[in-house]
Amino acid sequence: MNMKIAILGGTGEQGFGLALRLAKNYEIIIGSRSREKAEESAERIKKILSSKKISYRNVIGMENREASREGDIVILSIPYQHTISTIKNLREELKGKIVVSIGVPLAGIIGDKPTRVILPPEGSVAEMVQQYLKDSKVVSAFQNVSAKVLECIDEPVDCDILICGDNEEAKRKVIEVVNSIEGCKGIDCGELEMSRYVEQITPILIGLNIKYKLKGSGIRITGLRM
Amino acid sequence: MNMKIAILGGTGEQGFGLALRLAKNYEIIIGSRSREKAEESAERIKKILSSKKISYRNVIGMENREASREGDIVILSIPYQHTISTIKNLREELKGKIVVSIGVPLAGIIGDKPTRVILPPEGSVAEMVQQYLKDSKVVSAFQNVSAKVLECIDEPVDCDILICGDNEEAKRKVIEVVNSIEGCKGIDCGELEMSRYVEQITPILIGLNIKYKLKGSGIRITGLRM
Repeated sequence: MNMKIAILGGTGEQGFGLALRLAKNYEIIIGSRSREKAEESAERIKKILSSKKISYRNVIGMENREASREGDIVILSIPYQHTISTIKNLREELKGKIVVSIGVPLAGIIGDKPTRVILPPEGSVAEMVQQYLKDSKVVSAFQNVSAKVLECIDEPVDCDILICGDNEEAKRKVIEVVNSIEGCKGIDCGELEMSRYVEQITPILIGLNIKYKLKGSGIRITGLRM
Repeated sequence: MNMKIAILGGTGEQGFGLALRLAKNYEIIIGSRSREKAEESAERIKKILSSKKISYRNVIGMENREASREGDIVILSIPYQHTISTIKNLREELKGKIVVSIGVPLAGIIGDKPTRVILPPEGSVAEMVQQYLKDSKVVSAFQNVSAKVLECIDEPVDCDILICGDNEEAKRKVIEVVNSIEGCKGIDCGELEMSRYVEQITPILIGLNIKYKLKGSGIRITGLRM
């Protein structure tokens, strides 16, 4: 497991939560447009983990481009509306790499409700990312787990992580990363295009979080052990 | 619970499974285009339940129109492509009633894969139904539970049922019906338009069923008890 995981936009909520959880088993590179912000975030993560007496590998902060170059696996924790503009400048750095799309096309970007989606022409954020990063191995994951749940590192995460992608080996590696988070189970849901349906589970969960004032609902798949 | 539940298209797989499960607590009217087929199905259900020594109220078969008139709650177990043509002739009979949409807009109707959807202009089957039955209280349910799992009446159903609808009282009644099935839990997911996202969970589950040769995967929502 001597892999370096870069999290672009790792200063954001979802990226920060993932970094906290993954730092236990992987070297983490927080990426941001600003190196200072990335380093700040990295320090904050180390401080939280130390205060909880959780051992970790290393957490460092870098500018997005440098982070893309350094990471063996690169997680895109970038707002929907900034995804294309960010990745189209990182094609070279991300060539041949496993790129994990965690984005959800929420309609908030046009001022609509967070319980609605506005789909990209490709059908899903993950397919959109693959369209712009033709030479990367795009895997879709982590759309249905709440940032707040990830941040509560004292508790296991009660959520399955649905994995989609067209490269089998890349999916296997991402499932290994997912399964390193206590309570998470990675489930291979087939081709990358299935991410359309996985991304659209999130508005249901957001709706439940609002309606029932939850920290973060999630999902489990039943009927798998037969 | 002295309610009569009509299941239009109750001779089909999903309707048959629901009838088997619901007959324990409700009078069931199987609806079909042909009264003979409906009556045959009703007999088959009674025979199965009797052989399992499961007590039931009553199960009868009727032509769809008569069934619509008789049922207090009417479940639409009709193939996607025949939904509009069936319901537009039943507007009068379904006026003021709770109509449960269980359909999923699978792309099989155009010869495409069962792991894809082809959405109606309204966004979901449930919204399409409401569009054609303006005077009925449409509630969306049962899209994510497999017919095969419903048919195994010796085992509880390991699946949450996501409920969407614009009429609160109608939703409450449907949740009561759902919760009468052992193992099922009805979860109010908000307005009818949320059915768009609920219906699109089904292609993921179908994909898992095919990939892992499952009897029927399902879902559970986590994080609700906080």
